[in-house]
Amino acid sequence: MAKPTSASHESWLPEANLTSADFPLTHLPYGAFEHEGRQRLCVAIGAHLLDLYACANSSLLPPSLIEACQAPFLNPLMALGHRSWTLLRETLTSLLHVDAARDRRQGAEAALHSIVGTALVKPALVPNYTDFYASLHHATRVGRIFRPEQPLLPNYKYVPIGYHGRASSIIPSGMPVIRPIGQSRPSNPNEKPNFHATRSLDYELELALYIGQGNLLGTPISITEADSHLFGISLLNDWSARDIQSWEYQPLGPFLGKNFATTISPWITPMAALEPFRVPATPRPKDDPEPLRYLHSEADRQRGNFNVKLEVLLSTSTMRENRLGPYLLSESNLGDLYWTPAQLITHHTSNGCNLQIGDILATGTISGPAEASGGCLLELTRNGTEPRLLPTGETRAFLADGDEIIFRGSCEAPSQPRIGLGECRAMILPARG
Amino acid sequence: MAKPTSASHESWLPEANLTSADFPLTHLPYGAFEHEGRQRLCVAIGAHLLDLYACANSSLLPPSLIEACQAPFLNPLMALGHRSWTLLRETLTSLLHVDAARDRRQGAEAALHSIVGTALVKPALVPNYTDFYASLHHATRVGRIFRPEQPLLPNYKYVPIGYHGRASSIIPSGMPVIRPIGQSRPSNPNEKPNFHATRSLDYELELALYIGQGNLLGTPISITEADSHLFGISLLNDWSARDIQSWEYQPLGPFLGKNFATTISPWITPMAALEPFRVPATPRPKDDPEPLRYLHSEADRQRGNFNVKLEVLLSTSTMRENRLGPYLLSESNLGDLYWTPAQLITHHTSNGCNLQIGDILATGTISGPAEASGGCLLELTRNGTEPRLLPTGETRAFLADGDEIIFRGSCEAPSQPRIGLGECRAMILPARG
Repeated sequence: MAKPTSASHESWLPEANLTSADFPLTHLPYGAFEHEGRQRLCVAIGAHLLDLYACANSSLLPPSLIEACQAPFLNPLMALGHRSWTLLRETLTSLLHVDAARDRRQGAEAALHSIVGTALVKPALVPNYTDFYASLHHATRVGRIFRPEQPLLPNYKYVPIGYHGRASSIIPSGMPVIRPIGQSRPSNPNEKPNFHATRSLDYELELALYIGQGNLLGTPISITEADSHLFGISLLNDWSARDIQSWEYQPLGPFLGKNFATTISPWITPMAALEPFRVPATPRPKDDPEPLRYLHSEADRQRGNFNVKLEVLLSTSTMRENRLGPYLLSESNLGDLYWTPAQLITHHTSNGCNLQIGDILATGTISGPAEASGGCLLELTRNGTEPRLLPTGETRAFLADGDEIIFRGSCEAPSQPRIGLGECRAMILPARG
Repeated sequence: MAKPTSASHESWLPEANLTSADFPLTHLPYGAFEHEGRQRLCVAIGAHLLDLYACANSSLLPPSLIEACQAPFLNPLMALGHRSWTLLRETLTSLLHVDAARDRRQGAEAALHSIVGTALVKPALVPNYTDFYASLHHATRVGRIFRPEQPLLPNYKYVPIGYHGRASSIIPSGMPVIRPIGQSRPSNPNEKPNFHATRSLDYELELALYIGQGNLLGTPISITEADSHLFGISLLNDWSARDIQSWEYQPLGPFLGKNFATTISPWITPMAALEPFRVPATPRPKDDPEPLRYLHSEADRQRGNFNVKLEVLLSTSTMRENRLGPYLLSESNLGDLYWTPAQLITHHTSNGCNLQIGDILATGTISGPAEASGGCLLELTRNGTEPRLLPTGETRAFLADGDEIIFRGSCEAPSQPRIGLGECRAMILPARG
């Protein structure tokens, strides 16, 4: 059974103290919700959200934070920088702590809403979206399907491979995804390509790294400074139409196979809440080269990654009709990645490229070393050739209309309350007419 | 000698009537400039700019346009839609016409500034930047260098190949470009990659298509409607570090080899000014397949392209020291492209991807059929193996520090004043420390 956490992290909101809570007092992830037709910022606590706009209006926040907390997006708060992030987090922690002064607690109580029944929306404006390919396991297994003679390209262990995704089609969790139409490779090279609804719609399990502080064009961010540019993380589903992608992607990379939708989860876990879950960078396999010097720092090697457990679940229409819960497709961990978040930031800016406040750097599909831990169906079903049998007797090579994909994430460490990243979910709707 | 244009296009500003003028009354391209620390919108006329903010303040514009013309960026004007674009253009044309009422002319005179000595800045906020690859000649010649056995990939004649570029590093003409540092392929596969300033810095001659009206996510834009989403065009230089690009681009496409800088020219030529220069889509070579149905319209085939002549010029430090003007490297024409602007828009949205107001769709390098018309040094020097001899006795395989690259563009048609797109220019500065 769920038990209360230790007193020092105790909130006056009892549900936040259950060990099963995603959002204990030590978490306080940022989000945004719709209130009377407007968008407001909030943090999650227990099963509730605390309305930051209302807190700002009730003199519960320091004057320097009021304007940023009244904004509809997190970008102004991000722009204020670390001291302000720490100040806000300390203020909110003491406000929700069991020892909070009575009048402040009453003020906060008036700004609480149940998360259930609230419309959560995108909490940040995302000027640029970059997608990396940081899982060696994913890259190797995907490579084995398409290039069995050379699964891993010679650049992989030196270059944190990435490309620019589409910022305009980033959508909030819960918004359905319409099955895209597009060209795919003709079965006979002398025929015209097909043009129809994708037959190999896939998800990709990723984490979004939100940039809270940018850099000037022409000014790289060193590996020792990279961490300080991060604001927080959330779950991200980089939907992929494998047949469209495989026909279009040479020589300039993925385009229409990806840019029809990218789903992000509503809660951004601040880096401060992740500190207790730091782990060493994944040790490189014995014969692998060391990273080039600009990508190496001893501190990053020793504690540059995070223990974030991830799950992918599938709910089909048949499961829902039969009142069956979603089915666990796979599990993996952010710690499985070959490159750390700091290495991704440093590589991205090594040529002088400027990151902007609110940018998302996605990790790429997070797959573990085991075959069963693949973060997409392309891996789990070997490009659809080995369909997965579901408990309903259904099979899936790729996603069917009506399927809902749900990502969950959580962090655990000794003597620390567990935190959960919430959910990133979306249902597939049939292609348009 | 330059002669006045026909009376119907005559302005009261004599310089605008010279046949050599880039900015006659029929052009009126949009731009933005710095005025007392703030950014204001303007149009170019002759050698002057007309301050739209000042015009709006002096009751020279219709009330419905005042707010958009007082904005620092064109996006609010774009958002107003076609009727407003036409209304503004008609208003400004009559205001600057030789028959303008005296008081209105005096009002406009007070809002004129010489372009020389004015700081021109980015006229639009660009939420997303897509780069296409629409020149068959470019794709074939580049392919011949890297894949002599198969210069053109099987998808090229069906798929308008494109990828997402970096919006944050789009910079205005005149801002220098710092030579980027990055990884390049080791000379021996058993060695580590190099990490140093690029040794193969290149330009790419392109045009930017500005999106003036977007589409909703999930709602493709048909080929017959695509044209109406365009606001205007400008020159664009998609700087490329070929050694970085060639090592990093497999399997997900160009990234750090491109995203250190993209230069755009200050003036956006509205589509209405381009109407007289429409030409048929380039006829496909006899044995080429027809485009798939979603990319085909008879109207687009008959008049979907534009006769825009383009030039690339190079000015080296030695040329400037010797007071020599810039040297013409190559010429080509927008009409040389394999895909029309409408086809690029329709393909981009065919999977439901949403375009946003202010987005740039770049054409990709515009090269002509002749070897000498290549739109980048990669083509002109065959990847640096055949350096170009310059009139100073210097040679260039790729760009040297201190080199300035200048793009120019112009449109001519019978009984029409010529228009010029102005210049897109930038100088290369040495890599940092």
